[in-house]
Amino acid sequence: MDWRAVVGKNVRALRQDRGLTQEQLAFEAELDLTYLGGIERGKRNPSLLVLARISEALGVSPTALLATPAR
Amino acid sequence: MDWRAVVGKNVRALRQDRGLTQEQLAFEAELDLTYLGGIERGKRNPSLLVLARISEALGVSPTALLATPAR
Repeated sequence: MDWRAVVGKNVRALRQDRGLTQEQLAFEAELDLTYLGGIERGKRNPSLLVLARISEALGVSPTALLATPAR
Repeated sequence: MDWRAVVGKNVRALRQDRGLTQEQLAFEAELDLTYLGGIERGKRNPSLLVLARISEALGVSPTALLATPAR
């Protein structure tokens, strides 16, 4: 399982569901825009506390960022 | 919410449920023993891929490491 890809897809989907741009989410989560883009593309390995900031900005539990498609 | 403390408690509880020592879990997850101890004490900020290695060694989904007590 590529967990970076899982997190990236979840962050992007949740962000778009909320009608947020990457710029808006980066601002809310206090992340560099380029870094957030890398997370969404599955290229970065974010820390627990970064995941927590993103989930808080999206209004979800951190577990939602790690959710995998039902099998 | 102190997510480092949440993860630490979950890792320790799941490890002890499985009858594993810190040494055994550190070996399985390919982590330094001191680093794993710091995670269990809520003092470290592990990356996504470290969380994934720990969860795999414990036989759970990474979401289990972020689970919070029912309110």
